[in-house]
Amino acid sequence: MRMVRDFWGEIKDPVHGYVYITGEEKGLIDSFPVQRLHRLRQLAGAEYVYPGANHTRFEHSVGVMYLASRVIENPNISHYVSEGEAEMVRMAGLLHDVGHGPFSHVFEPLLEKELGKTHEDITLWLVENSELKDRLEEVGCRSGDVGKLAVGRLHRPGKAFLDQIISSAVDVDKQDFIVRDSYHTGAEYGFVDVSRLVHTLDALGGNLAVDLGALSALESLIIARMESFRSIYFHRVGRAAQIMLSTAMMKANEELGLTCFKTPEEYLSMDDYMVWAMLKNCKKSSSIIRNLEKREMLKCAYERTFYEKDTVVSNLFSREANRAQLKEEIAREARVKEETVFIDVPTVPSVPNHHSVLMESFEIPVFYKTPKGEKVPQKLSEISKIFETLKGFMNIMRVYTDEENREKVTAAASKILGKIPSSATISY
Amino acid sequence: MRMVRDFWGEIKDPVHGYVYITGEEKGLIDSFPVQRLHRLRQLAGAEYVYPGANHTRFEHSVGVMYLASRVIENPNISHYVSEGEAEMVRMAGLLHDVGHGPFSHVFEPLLEKELGKTHEDITLWLVENSELKDRLEEVGCRSGDVGKLAVGRLHRPGKAFLDQIISSAVDVDKQDFIVRDSYHTGAEYGFVDVSRLVHTLDALGGNLAVDLGALSALESLIIARMESFRSIYFHRVGRAAQIMLSTAMMKANEELGLTCFKTPEEYLSMDDYMVWAMLKNCKKSSSIIRNLEKREMLKCAYERTFYEKDTVVSNLFSREANRAQLKEEIAREARVKEETVFIDVPTVPSVPNHHSVLMESFEIPVFYKTPKGEKVPQKLSEISKIFETLKGFMNIMRVYTDEENREKVTAAASKILGKIPSSATISY
Amino acid sequence: MRMVRDFWGEIKDPVHGYVYITGEEKGLIDSFPVQRLHRLRQLAGAEYVYPGANHTRFEHSVGVMYLASRVIENPNISHYVSEGEAEMVRMAGLLHDVGHGPFSHVFEPLLEKELGKTHEDITLWLVENSELKDRLEEVGCRSGDVGKLAVGRLHRPGKAFLDQIISSAVDVDKQDFIVRDSYHTGAEYGFVDVSRLVHTLDALGGNLAVDLGALSALESLIIARMESFRSIYFHRVGRAAQIMLSTAMMKANEELGLTCFKTPEEYLSMDDYMVWAMLKNCKKSSSIIRNLEKREMLKCAYERTFYEKDTVVSNLFSREANRAQLKEEIAREARVKEETVFIDVPTVPSVPNHHSVLMESFEIPVFYKTPKGEKVPQKLSEISKIFETLKGFMNIMRVYTDEENREKVTAAASKILGKIPSSATISY
Amino acid sequence: MRMVRDFWGEIKDPVHGYVYITGEEKGLIDSFPVQRLHRLRQLAGAEYVYPGANHTRFEHSVGVMYLASRVIENPNISHYVSEGEAEMVRMAGLLHDVGHGPFSHVFEPLLEKELGKTHEDITLWLVENSELKDRLEEVGCRSGDVGKLAVGRLHRPGKAFLDQIISSAVDVDKQDFIVRDSYHTGAEYGFVDVSRLVHTLDALGGNLAVDLGALSALESLIIARMESFRSIYFHRVGRAAQIMLSTAMMKANEELGLTCFKTPEEYLSMDDYMVWAMLKNCKKSSSIIRNLEKREMLKCAYERTFYEKDTVVSNLFSREANRAQLKEEIAREARVKEETVFIDVPTVPSVPNHHSVLMESFEIPVFYKTPKGEKVPQKLSEISKIFETLKGFMNIMRVYTDEENREKVTAAASKILGKIPSSATISY
Repeated sequence: MRMVRDFWGEIKDPVHGYVYITGEEKGLIDSFPVQRLHRLRQLAGAEYVYPGANHTRFEHSVGVMYLASRVIENPNISHYVSEGEAEMVRMAGLLHDVGHGPFSHVFEPLLEKELGKTHEDITLWLVENSELKDRLEEVGCRSGDVGKLAVGRLHRPGKAFLDQIISSAVDVDKQDFIVRDSYHTGAEYGFVDVSRLVHTLDALGGNLAVDLGALSALESLIIARMESFRSIYFHRVGRAAQIMLSTAMMKANEELGLTCFKTPEEYLSMDDYMVWAMLKNCKKSSSIIRNLEKREMLKCAYERTFYEKDTVVSNLFSREANRAQLKEEIAREARVKEETVFIDVPTVPSVPNHHSVLMESFEIPVFYKTPKGEKVPQKLSEISKIFETLKGFMNIMRVYTDEENREKVTAAASKILGKIPSSATISY
Repeated sequence: MRMVRDFWGEIKDPVHGYVYITGEEKGLIDSFPVQRLHRLRQLAGAEYVYPGANHTRFEHSVGVMYLASRVIENPNISHYVSEGEAEMVRMAGLLHDVGHGPFSHVFEPLLEKELGKTHEDITLWLVENSELKDRLEEVGCRSGDVGKLAVGRLHRPGKAFLDQIISSAVDVDKQDFIVRDSYHTGAEYGFVDVSRLVHTLDALGGNLAVDLGALSALESLIIARMESFRSIYFHRVGRAAQIMLSTAMMKANEELGLTCFKTPEEYLSMDDYMVWAMLKNCKKSSSIIRNLEKREMLKCAYERTFYEKDTVVSNLFSREANRAQLKEEIAREARVKEETVFIDVPTVPSVPNHHSVLMESFEIPVFYKTPKGEKVPQKLSEISKIFETLKGFMNIMRVYTDEENREKVTAAASKILGKIPSSATISY
Repeated sequence: MRMVRDFWGEIKDPVHGYVYITGEEKGLIDSFPVQRLHRLRQLAGAEYVYPGANHTRFEHSVGVMYLASRVIENPNISHYVSEGEAEMVRMAGLLHDVGHGPFSHVFEPLLEKELGKTHEDITLWLVENSELKDRLEEVGCRSGDVGKLAVGRLHRPGKAFLDQIISSAVDVDKQDFIVRDSYHTGAEYGFVDVSRLVHTLDALGGNLAVDLGALSALESLIIARMESFRSIYFHRVGRAAQIMLSTAMMKANEELGLTCFKTPEEYLSMDDYMVWAMLKNCKKSSSIIRNLEKREMLKCAYERTFYEKDTVVSNLFSREANRAQLKEEIAREARVKEETVFIDVPTVPSVPNHHSVLMESFEIPVFYKTPKGEKVPQKLSEISKIFETLKGFMNIMRVYTDEENREKVTAAASKILGKIPSSATISY
Repeated sequence: MRMVRDFWGEIKDPVHGYVYITGEEKGLIDSFPVQRLHRLRQLAGAEYVYPGANHTRFEHSVGVMYLASRVIENPNISHYVSEGEAEMVRMAGLLHDVGHGPFSHVFEPLLEKELGKTHEDITLWLVENSELKDRLEEVGCRSGDVGKLAVGRLHRPGKAFLDQIISSAVDVDKQDFIVRDSYHTGAEYGFVDVSRLVHTLDALGGNLAVDLGALSALESLIIARMESFRSIYFHRVGRAAQIMLSTAMMKANEELGLTCFKTPEEYLSMDDYMVWAMLKNCKKSSSIIRNLEKREMLKCAYERTFYEKDTVVSNLFSREANRAQLKEEIAREARVKEETVFIDVPTVPSVPNHHSVLMESFEIPVFYKTPKGEKVPQKLSEISKIFETLKGFMNIMRVYTDEENREKVTAAASKILGKIPSSATISY
């Protein structure tokens, strides 16, 4: 049994249709930290490949709130949650990305390098210390709990699924961004039967689990995620733009103090618009921004794909120190300035961190429901060949440089990293 | 260089939009053999699973003509074909399915068993002997060539790609039915970037080939085909309906003479409507039809999935004689009448024959285009892990029976074929 | 407050997605009278214009059940209905079309002429007298009430909206068929924001009413209905096919006894498949069927559009006697056989009767909700210019004949009915 | 006869799919003035209503180039144009919006007030004086001609349709933005059968004209435009945001010198990102920007809709002087500061200027094609009641103010402008 909610009104979302919200949620949505998400692009850099990819974290956050709500109200999960928990999950979905910095994931390496933090840490800090705290408590929510849930760290005993709805291999965050990124880019590889997934997600031993009746939907999520990674998130040109932006922020940081914020308000004052203008006006970074404005992008001089068996190799390159050394070697060999060489692997934090999971071995709990309704756990890797193939999938390493140094760097990288057959450069 | 055609008008297709046709094509479309396709369902039996799956071979044939046209006019292929060949490919696309019997693939086992023919043989016979012959020749097409091309057997020297556009692992037939079946069923697994495929298909050494730049589109075709196989073509309930229809035709054949046609006209007089009525009125088959009308379907008593390694086993069951023996054994063990037991494997001709290819090891020619435009052949299996995983994919064996004998047959089949873990019954 | 239902499972609908059904509904869906709808095309005749238009009354009925459910569970309406009424509305939605005869609306003139009945009368009779009665009562529904509600005649005091959900100017029947017909035909004029409509429908003084906040959705319904009427339901060629089918049934009726059914079972034994075969085998009608098979259609020799002001004229032609007289006059003037001349106006019962409402002056109750939640009734005609324009919209009269008599009949009709400027023949 | 072009590559557009471009076009697209359009939102302000409305002028410009190309290559128009003209039309489509200032139409009133210019004037100036001139001439295009065509002022004798493809009542600019705005907002009222329109547009006496066979597509364009105007462009909250932005720019102009640009480069240095940052940092405008950031919007205190008959009245308010006087009167009556009152009518230049055409009486040339192919001109207003209804459609006047002064301003405006029935405030 549950109440039919009293809705304040609706938001029209191009992906999910009408999202009905309560008065309490309206209050939170209209707060400054959430409204700021209007000026954080979801996929900064992707517009150089997909002109339509201009959607923002705001739109995505409303979508995550919506899907979280659909899961929590489905016939399987609703048995296990109180009305208060349901509201908390919606709020957490809405707030899960408030901690992102300018250009979203592109800001992540600065956060990590300078402060040892992730955007999730910032999210937690903001929910507990900004005006969000007051707004949440006004409507009877514990800001501490909402903050933890927003980053998947509530750890409520026996209810791990609450965290997993927001943050796991099948979380609604992924479900939303995969279909939304596909919608706005026009890349037609992100079709996922989200409607079926959110309806069939269930709990098994307190964990979020998938009924095998929805196996096709689950596989489509996994495939779409992999295709999106290749076509959108790790696209050669899109990554070039992100590396340029990230480098610009690194170079200008000393002068602009992007990581010197003390209060929530100081952090929140940074968004794509303001930081873009700052970078353009700052001597250290202005030439990079000018290049972006003229679409003079870094060029990919070398690319290599590693498969599972190369885990050792790929881990090697995911360490900052190793990348720095490689960069130096290639620059020396090519006789170009070190700062014109960039090593890119998807495990660096500037790549959407949810995708790095791709490289790990993970298991989504699945079960088979007997005619009597008993849930029998299964091993996904034994059941789905697709899953088995795609898990631990791929690792790409690229070396970027300026247009003018391209040939020299290609030669140097090939010498150091080995010449590779053209086929391997193309796909995996 | 090519002429902008003079079009007679357009046909509105829910999948591809406007299909513009010439006066010559209009003449062929309005012929009786093509109009008859209005009364041949594309997926007879699927409506018991997907209420929307009522589309016909007519709609599909127009779609194949359209896609064939898009391939033949693309910047890569158009260099190699004359205006006459282009028209021939369109006509062949339109006519490729005219040989189908009532309920399409469900009629196939009768054709094979009684006459040793496939629907392609009938297509060829009809194009060369029915009114289609006259209509084609009136507009200057050689009916013999169009007929052969319609079944992929033109074998024009140096132009194998002409046949392959109509019949191969990436043919426009598959491209059309996968997206169309997905559209009308609503099964959301059939998304394929067909628009990109038809634009990038190329010729390499006279064979149809795919530029690796469109690898994602190619993979999406392969994935969609596999998902459609599982969700639509080989769906447990849809197959039950097809087995029932097929059995009804087998039983009534002696009385109704469905395979005794002498002339094209006699063959063409059979369509879903007429044969359904005949089966309902015939004593031998009426009880099966009555069951279908009340949705009292055969039940699946046993199901087992074989993987690649089981090729030997699966080939075993694809032989009629082996299936007959197994059927008899199970019936004896279960102490039920033999005629109430049905063995189903996807290699029997009543399953869309294009899908049986799934079980074979095939290679689609792919190439990498160098900056200078040279095409370098590649091995798809080395490049795409998805392809490697899905090729030679799966084989399902099922045992069906009546509701009342279900438990007995399940026990008997399990005894004879081995008890299998529940996980394996669910997916692959 | 309402129960979260226990669902038996789901049906995949290409238009609305997953439709979740209870065990009780599953029982009703699997009954013969509902399963028969698989063999009643929604738009018989339209396939000659739109090859994709092969959808059936079954698919539509499931869609109507779904939308009825959405209305009855929305936050406005759910306050007014009991759980039992909610279930009754779903059942009524599912069953509202069971009374249709072969080729749906095309059978209507026979029903009216020979028996003075409509398909709604038959629906009521079937629900109360066929196996539907037993199935409904087994699950605790009163078959009499469900039957009446299915045709919009329950008349429960103070709850007129129950009838109106199923049958009114904004009923879910229209909402479903407009979007569904658009989907399968591919005619891109039927976009309606149904999701918003079903969410905002409300009750005002016991009547179904529309909140002006959803005015755009309401207008889109009215526009789509009008565009669908013109592009699909009253398309020149589609109508020709329907007239041919209707004439075939009229001619063969004496011999085949299509209107001589005594029991529900006798009536239900007629469907598109069986009657098509009967008409093809009957001497009286076989030549018409042969023409349809070769797409040799009746031709439109004369067409005239009447506007509101011509109400008198249009009413004149909607009377059978007047049409018969006109037919005779034109035939005499043209010196052709009377039976080769056909007068067609959209008010004859063979045109989807829901559309004839177009020609009448109707008012949909609308209201404005004050900030305090009070509902203030408004006059739609004062608020929406679109509505004002489209209401009482259009009336088309056509004269059809054989290809060979076309010119003679055009001349005769022009003489008798007046020569009309070409512009008026084209649109309205 | 025409060449199949050699394409350099493709751009993936979420609305039109793949847009194939030549090397010459690639050069132009990568220029700074075109790349800058990445940072000009198409619908600045609309994100407060539709979170998905973040698309840019870049995406739109590529779409306009694409549709222009489709028109110029269709079987009707292609007869009349040379290869050079075809290329010119594509280039003009791509460049038609380069003259837009920050926040697109929101910058228009400044341009007009301070410089007496429109964004079209700026477009012409930029094409003839910026790096665009060089890039065009390098590939053999006359920049003067392209510039004039980009704003619909080429006036080539006998070929008025060239201008009209880019700028007229049925131009491809409108066709693109209506479907694109609908796509990204999710407002489901913008469905237009663009594919049919671009295929059927024709020339009649040198003017762009519509074949009546595509009347439904034309009507859908007109309806969609009107619905988009109401739901998107003139939405109460979206307009509030635009008025706030526009006011901020007016207030800060003296200090920031937004209209003091001397060179193309100076003008082009302004985009949404840079100007937003400038406005936020400028004392004169920072409080407005802060309000926008917290979604504290101006409130609509009064709204009135005028119909055609009120042309005199509506023209009255479209004059700046009259609006200023009204503003002053209302402020005095309400005893609030004059600067807190805002009069908004859709004829002010900050409303997308294409929409102001709505208020004018215009005629789109339409014709009827006889069976012999002769084109007979028709009067659209005589043929289409929808057109007749919607032409010269609507005019809305609104009075906005701060939250705190809302009631006082409502009272004052009602006293001065007359109290109006609530119905009239809701729709038209």
